[in-house]
Amino acid sequence: MMRMISLIIFIFSLLLFSCHAAVQDFCVADLTAPETPAGYACKKAANVTVDDFVFSGLGVAANPTGTFTKYYKSAITTAFAAQFPGVNGLGFSFARLDQEPGGVVPIHAHPGASEAILVLEGKITAGFVSSANKVYYKTLKKGDVMILPQGLLHFQVNAGSTPVQIFVTFSSANPGLQILDYSLFSNDFPSELLAATSFLDIPQIKKLKAFFGGTG
Amino acid sequence: MMRMISLIIFIFSLLLFSCHAAVQDFCVADLTAPETPAGYACKKAANVTVDDFVFSGLGVAANPTGTFTKYYKSAITTAFAAQFPGVNGLGFSFARLDQEPGGVVPIHAHPGASEAILVLEGKITAGFVSSANKVYYKTLKKGDVMILPQGLLHFQVNAGSTPVQIFVTFSSANPGLQILDYSLFSNDFPSELLAATSFLDIPQIKKLKAFFGGTG
Amino acid sequence: MMRMISLIIFIFSLLLFSCHAAVQDFCVADLTAPETPAGYACKKAANVTVDDFVFSGLGVAANPTGTFTKYYKSAITTAFAAQFPGVNGLGFSFARLDQEPGGVVPIHAHPGASEAILVLEGKITAGFVSSANKVYYKTLKKGDVMILPQGLLHFQVNAGSTPVQIFVTFSSANPGLQILDYSLFSNDFPSELLAATSFLDIPQIKKLKAFFGGTG
Amino acid sequence: MMRMISLIIFIFSLLLFSCHAAVQDFCVADLTAPETPAGYACKKAANVTVDDFVFSGLGVAANPTGTFTKYYKSAITTAFAAQFPGVNGLGFSFARLDQEPGGVVPIHAHPGASEAILVLEGKITAGFVSSANKVYYKTLKKGDVMILPQGLLHFQVNAGSTPVQIFVTFSSANPGLQILDYSLFSNDFPSELLAATSFLDIPQIKKLKAFFGGTG
Amino acid sequence: MMRMISLIIFIFSLLLFSCHAAVQDFCVADLTAPETPAGYACKKAANVTVDDFVFSGLGVAANPTGTFTKYYKSAITTAFAAQFPGVNGLGFSFARLDQEPGGVVPIHAHPGASEAILVLEGKITAGFVSSANKVYYKTLKKGDVMILPQGLLHFQVNAGSTPVQIFVTFSSANPGLQILDYSLFSNDFPSELLAATSFLDIPQIKKLKAFFGGTG
Amino acid sequence: MMRMISLIIFIFSLLLFSCHAAVQDFCVADLTAPETPAGYACKKAANVTVDDFVFSGLGVAANPTGTFTKYYKSAITTAFAAQFPGVNGLGFSFARLDQEPGGVVPIHAHPGASEAILVLEGKITAGFVSSANKVYYKTLKKGDVMILPQGLLHFQVNAGSTPVQIFVTFSSANPGLQILDYSLFSNDFPSELLAATSFLDIPQIKKLKAFFGGTG
Repeated sequence: MMRMISLIIFIFSLLLFSCHAAVQDFCVADLTAPETPAGYACKKAANVTVDDFVFSGLGVAANPTGTFTKYYKSAITTAFAAQFPGVNGLGFSFARLDQEPGGVVPIHAHPGASEAILVLEGKITAGFVSSANKVYYKTLKKGDVMILPQGLLHFQVNAGSTPVQIFVTFSSANPGLQILDYSLFSNDFPSELLAATSFLDIPQIKKLKAFFGGTG
Repeated sequence: MMRMISLIIFIFSLLLFSCHAAVQDFCVADLTAPETPAGYACKKAANVTVDDFVFSGLGVAANPTGTFTKYYKSAITTAFAAQFPGVNGLGFSFARLDQEPGGVVPIHAHPGASEAILVLEGKITAGFVSSANKVYYKTLKKGDVMILPQGLLHFQVNAGSTPVQIFVTFSSANPGLQILDYSLFSNDFPSELLAATSFLDIPQIKKLKAFFGGTG
Repeated sequence: MMRMISLIIFIFSLLLFSCHAAVQDFCVADLTAPETPAGYACKKAANVTVDDFVFSGLGVAANPTGTFTKYYKSAITTAFAAQFPGVNGLGFSFARLDQEPGGVVPIHAHPGASEAILVLEGKITAGFVSSANKVYYKTLKKGDVMILPQGLLHFQVNAGSTPVQIFVTFSSANPGLQILDYSLFSNDFPSELLAATSFLDIPQIKKLKAFFGGTG
Repeated sequence: MMRMISLIIFIFSLLLFSCHAAVQDFCVADLTAPETPAGYACKKAANVTVDDFVFSGLGVAANPTGTFTKYYKSAITTAFAAQFPGVNGLGFSFARLDQEPGGVVPIHAHPGASEAILVLEGKITAGFVSSANKVYYKTLKKGDVMILPQGLLHFQVNAGSTPVQIFVTFSSANPGLQILDYSLFSNDFPSELLAATSFLDIPQIKKLKAFFGGTG
Repeated sequence: MMRMISLIIFIFSLLLFSCHAAVQDFCVADLTAPETPAGYACKKAANVTVDDFVFSGLGVAANPTGTFTKYYKSAITTAFAAQFPGVNGLGFSFARLDQEPGGVVPIHAHPGASEAILVLEGKITAGFVSSANKVYYKTLKKGDVMILPQGLLHFQVNAGSTPVQIFVTFSSANPGLQILDYSLFSNDFPSELLAATSFLDIPQIKKLKAFFGGTG
Repeated sequence: MMRMISLIIFIFSLLLFSCHAAVQDFCVADLTAPETPAGYACKKAANVTVDDFVFSGLGVAANPTGTFTKYYKSAITTAFAAQFPGVNGLGFSFARLDQEPGGVVPIHAHPGASEAILVLEGKITAGFVSSANKVYYKTLKKGDVMILPQGLLHFQVNAGSTPVQIFVTFSSANPGLQILDYSLFSNDFPSELLAATSFLDIPQIKKLKAFFGGTG
């Protein structure tokens, strides 16, 4: 018994240092502070609760009001550091994708992360293109996981006749997202410059710029 | 047209270099080669196919034969680098957990990775203990994601009356796994030493050693 | 001589840039600023003195008043970033452990760092358990160094009849610390949940909770 | 003098250890060994010469035979780990770009590296598109350096009437390269799938596939 | 057409999240904020312009007024994070070196970065010494690239009869710089201590201290 | 009891995967395999014993035979990855320094690691020079710890009249070592080139080259 008493006293001294040291096992993002190259500054440990580690927003499909049409329902909900501050500094983040039949996630890339998709519902064809210009794609069924290595162009399309639901993991708390069409056609990228560097025809560019809201 | 021809020739020269450079966007594990601190050596790119990036083993529950009982069905299937060589070097890996009502994943830790759990079916109570000895736990419903920061002790128990299915993400291709009871009671950890360093009573230790197959 | 004159002028121009660049070879922690995933913000270089790089607190044993008993003296002094701001960002930190005969450091883990112990006085039995549930332990004499890989449960007990003094190195400026008993028995971890996830008997849990100050 | 003698003896003992330790300050790639996620295995230090650290291939423009046309001369020479084994493990690599008037480097990205371009000759318009779909571009003159952050689509076009020569730095020894048109039009990416995920019209796709050698 | 409409709506929802997430592909340094071990805090993305990614200061030689002499013209201009905030967090930075005939960059090291030099004009002899005390040096001509691994002592001297211009890349946004002579002779390093630890003769030390402005 | 039985079965299934996964918590160096930029390849886990984690070589002073003189005893014993394979991949390594009265560790740097010294016996004056050419030095007593940031020139001299014993920690398993005098005077560094880049006088260089065994 004496032994336990002395030990517990010893442990109290450990705890004491622990208290002084403000040892952080995690770094829940303080979104009001500026970012650094390693992520957001940490919220004070005393203010952290279990809810900082739980995200319920992926349990429901995105609100379809206005963002779904008859043929092409697609919606994404993200749980990156900005939505889910608990992932800050931990090296991963998440998202949910819903697609109605015919749904498409257009060609895009994540500059700072690899991606993995888990098919929760439906059938999907997903793929990526490597630096060697090889297309790796496959039709996936419920329960399949496919990985899409960092920074490479990839896509996902509903390959069935039922809705698709996908859970997405990224290997970064802040993966970035570059959708090809939006990168090219939704901004003021000058059409001549775009034609010269993409080899697309000007009429094709003009058509898509009109569509995606681009100018120039 | 001349422009395109010259460009394509230019691009061929890019490809040529690319070919010489053996540029690797990924490093699918060659499991026959020894590991390094950064992971396995890479399989030759020429031998990589789309199937190296797809894992279908998480789509089915583990075979219950012999590993499930009437009250406590629990089974895990992993997709770490050793089962899913495509994740080698990419910084994440995956697993699936199935629990019948009453199922428990006992207290454990992953020495080299943070974990995130997504509830696919059922209701689960999950939690972890921080360095400050605070227990963060919550009962999660389908669609909830909870993160369990690197190296900390944590647990998951079926909190409902229906089966639980969970998709697990780790922030490493090789997260490790240290189950508390197995660490203490399944091996030749001398009981006296264990009692001295755990403050458990010898009878408790003996009982659990008998149960988990330990000696000493 | 002309050569030297021109060179020194050149070097002054180097210094000038250096001054503008505020080149930092180190990042002494400003403990008043919030932490980031990479550590504390840096104290201004102009305010850094040699004392920021020297820590004298490990040269003396912890004050035994109240924390030592007749049979189980054990005390730890830490030099983590919070106590020794100079280690911030450098990837290591330190501690000192003193144990009277019979002293024990109970089973614990550091979620974010490997540990190395150097025996300065006495004889110690130290060990860790791997993910494969193998116990690696050995009795060490003065001058021995033993390493305890990241995140794994480990322990140290005085194996002799004289006091033990140990110098500890961690591979992180902020290694964290999770003492098993305190994680389980010093907080409000519900006893039923703990029993279910640890397989300890309720009476054992209640006894240790009473001892370590836990509730629930 | 005695002092120096003893010191030199001491230093010999340092050297001795150094010899045993096979301390490596660098890791020149052994291109015959398999890659790992951290790069190639190291050539034995004893076989390393100063020539492993020098690359002369960027001092001359690429041979134009067959790869240049009247209007669109463009050629690239790379010094990645596969061509310049000395950069293995050091975190950077290099390339040279030559462009005749009208030359274009089409839209592309490097999945694993940021890029910096230094204009050595001529006038160039370079730019990239961010995740927020903003186009950042500028016409650069000789001596300007522009950085293109990791993984983002970017381009370079000769903006003058004289040849352009550019020195390129990457923040990785193996940066990867994904040229948009080649990713889409030089392989067997099925046209229907490409149309669905790129929103390009089928005739445009067919035209470019014919041009870039694609099928499907 | 319906398809495009629905898709664009889907993409708008992506953009919306993107906006909330404040996804950062880059982290242009806010030089007014304190540094962290990972670099400076990021300037708000909304305030970033293309000019943050362009540095024109390396296009001109340093102003020779007062810093050049008849025989030893040498000047350096740096583009580290403090001068070129765009490189913050990207893992590289740059500099330009100009040398008149006879110019010398004295022995120095960069504690936190490897270096690569590209000869733009003239002929230079550059070299470094390894941990094994082997000197690797070579005379380089225009267009040659030589790498100088991290933390090792190295030097560059004009080996020709014409001016030298060199473009320098570092594998860090903040490489540091330690010039041997200035480290030893420009400060208050006590001469006796310096003699004891460098084995230089006191008169040599005194002569160089007088020259480089040192005291003690 | 049923509960425990089912659980243990569940855990056996975990162990089974663990066995297949060959989960490695550590990567003890296989010194017969080539190094990689991340360290040596791992010894097979089945062949690892507790002795791979214990190093006893720092418990004794280096053998003085031939390496000690009457006035300047100094000897170093290292426990880097090459001597202590267990540290491979763990981010630290160790050494022991012994100095008789008057002992000196001459000015040197570790290109790839920060260093920390713990004074075990005696009194020492240790210091380093920063990129800003400031000398930070202090006389340390037994029990003091001083840190010497990565890549910077530093030194240690016996400041008392009794032997000094120091325990050294490095923040890398392979820290490298560049001793200034040996870098300059023990090899074939041409004297003229050395004079030009160090500003030392030729007679001083010749004297030290004669002493340290250099040529040229």
